[in-house]
Order: sequence, then structure tokens, then C-alpha cells
Amino acid sequence: MLTLYDNLSSGNGYKVRLTLHQLAIPYTRIELDIDKRETRTPKFLAKNPNGRIPTLELDDGSYLPESNAIIFYLADATALLPSDRLARAQVLQWMFFEQYSHEPNVATSRYWLTHGFEITPERQTMLETKKKAGQDALAVMEQHLQRQSFFVGERYSIADIALYAYTHVAEEGGFALAPYSAIRAWLARVAQQPRHIPITQG
Amino acid sequence: MLTLYDNLSSGNGYKVRLTLHQLAIPYTRIELDIDKRETRTPKFLAKNPNGRIPTLELDDGSYLPESNAIIFYLADATALLPSDRLARAQVLQWMFFEQYSHEPNVATSRYWLTHGFEITPERQTMLETKKKAGQDALAVMEQHLQRQSFFVGERYSIADIALYAYTHVAEEGGFALAPYSAIRAWLARVAQQPRHIPITQG
Repeated sequence: MLTLYDNLSSGNGYKVRLTLHQLAIPYTRIELDIDKRETRTPKFLAKNPNGRIPTLELDDGSYLPESNAIIFYLADATALLPSDRLARAQVLQWMFFEQYSHEPNVATSRYWLTHGFEITPERQTMLETKKKAGQDALAVMEQHLQRQSFFVGERYSIADIALYAYTHVAEEGGFALAPYSAIRAWLARVAQQPRHIPITQG
Repeated sequence: MLTLYDNLSSGNGYKVRLTLHQLAIPYTRIELDIDKRETRTPKFLAKNPNGRIPTLELDDGSYLPESNAIIFYLADATALLPSDRLARAQVLQWMFFEQYSHEPNVATSRYWLTHGFEITPERQTMLETKKKAGQDALAVMEQHLQRQSFFVGERYSIADIALYAYTHVAEEGGFALAPYSAIRAWLARVAQQPRHIPITQG
């Protein structure tokens, strides 16, 4: 049985939980407290030297970190990942966009604002920079979704799962979604997929 | 023929040039001046709404952005990308690590220091934060390379290309590589691969 090292508040963890649930793959979940640095203990660093959840323990005892690599692994040869070479690269294109242009802005702002961080003047300046960059990322998504129902090939895939995870809770990071009507319609389509679960479900 | 929208100083662009050269794929290269915001013109935004190089124009006229998605596409079904499901996910694991934990620290510091940015007190504070996070990423790589010759499966792959691009010029970003002997030995192994080209070669 697969074991997922996870934190319920994490959108990166949620990507993996949602993919596992939609593929009906059973797993054991181990909750780690990020704020108490439980991902930086020697015991956990032996599993993932980068000290981050989610990390998936496979049946052979090996460990796979990085949320988007994990869901690519899980979705391989399923309906959640296209088999066409270009479509598969486009799925990855949006997943790298998510980790580079979206997550460090939208997710980090949410983390600071919901985990009791003191908003120092320095952090306030960084929040403003992240607000601008996060809005730029949302604008790129909005423009794409004005022409497409899902991110790649008009079909729900792990590209949608990767971008849904932090977009659907973007308001917790101070990002109003009201101006993004195509994103809001897409969020509703994703939530209507079979076997959808909320971020709060372990 | 493929067309690569590129900038010679970019490590992200270099990943694609190196992969194309090692796979002996002919291409046309179009140089864009990032400092003059040539990636943010309406004409270029029509190709990549996220306004970044590298972006690859395919034979069918479609555009593929995101350096790591591009090299995954190019390397598919070649010796540069393992066919085994887990090894392929591990290649992606290191490529997502590169874009999230390495590039925003090591590459951004190099960009500020080599493109004539004024180092304001605010930017100095950010450089110090990036120094610490970049050193953490290099330490994760060093630990891995103390046990392995290449990042995945003891074989040179696009995971090595992705991490080589900004690591081999890390000193331009203020990161001394002297303490990382396993990384330095790996840099030499990568540079010895057949059909290797330097970052300066278009």
C-alpha cells in the first residue's frame, strides 16, 4: 500500500490526495505539522532530503517527492494524462507554470496569511510583489480558459488538478476571483468531476 | 524546422539548445532581448501569453513554453529520457525541484548581478534570502551526487541537463562551488558528454 506524507492544509498535498481518490488507489496518509518543522527532522529528511511534503512512499520502499512528479507518476497510463506526445508536454507546460509562476505567489501568500505569520514591513513588501505576480498568473489562466474548457485537449487532466489546488483557495491568499469569470466557471467544472473531494478531506 | 525563441544568457534557453544539439535536431534560433522587454510585446505575447523565453515553435505552428516541458517533449523516446515509469517520474522530480528550489534562487541572483540591476537595500535582503535557499538546494544536490553519478538511474538524462544549466554558472550568482566536490565532479561528467556545447553557443 502507498503511504503519503502530507499536510491537510497543503494544496500540493491536496493534488496527490485528489488524484489518488479519483483513480481509486488506496493509501495510508501520515499528517506532518509543517509549522512545527516535522518535515525537517532527521527521520523525515532521510525520506526526502529537501524536507517537504507531499512525499509518496512506494511499495518498494522508495520515496517520490514533488507534488507534480507524484501525480504524473500516478496518472501515467490513465485517463488523467494524455498519451499523445505533444499533449503530454502541454500538461507538463502548465504544471511547470504552476510551480514557477503561480504557487510561489498565490500559495505562499495564503500560507503567510493563514498560518499566523507576523506581517512585518519586509513581508508586506513581498506580499505586494506576490500579489502582482499572482494576478499575472491568474490573467494567463483566464485568457487560456476563455478559449478552452480544460487546460489541455478539452479534457480534464492532472494539469487541471495541479492548477485547481491553490486557485480554488486563492481568496485565502488575498486574491479576489470575482474578475476572473472563465476561471470561476472552470473551478466549477473541476469540482463536478467524478470522485472529486475537497481539500479538507484526508 | 523548429524555431526557438531564446536569449543566449538564459540557462533556461541553454537547456533547450543543449538538448537540441545533443539530439542533432536542426532548428532556427531567434534572439530576444529580455532587458528591453522584447518578450512582453503584443507580438510575442500572442506566442506565449506568459511572456517568457524559451518558447519553441513546432512544425504545426503551435508554441510550447516552459524549458523543462520543452526538453521533455524533445527527449521523449530518446536515450535522454528513461522509459521506465518510476525513473521518468524521478526525472520530473528533479526538474520540478530545479524550477521551484533552485532556479528562483541561483538563477535570479545571477540575473540581478550580471544584468546591471541596482542592488537596492530591498534587493540586498532578497539576495541574502536567495543565498540561503540556493545553498540549501545545492546541499540537496551534493548529498544525492555523493551516491550517484547522474541524477536518475546512473545515466545522463534531461534531469542532468535541467540542473546543469544554472549550476555550472552558479558562481556568477555569488554561489561558490568549492565546498561541493560531488557537484563539481558531476559538472565535469556532464561537460564530457558527446555533443556538449557551452551556454555561449547559439
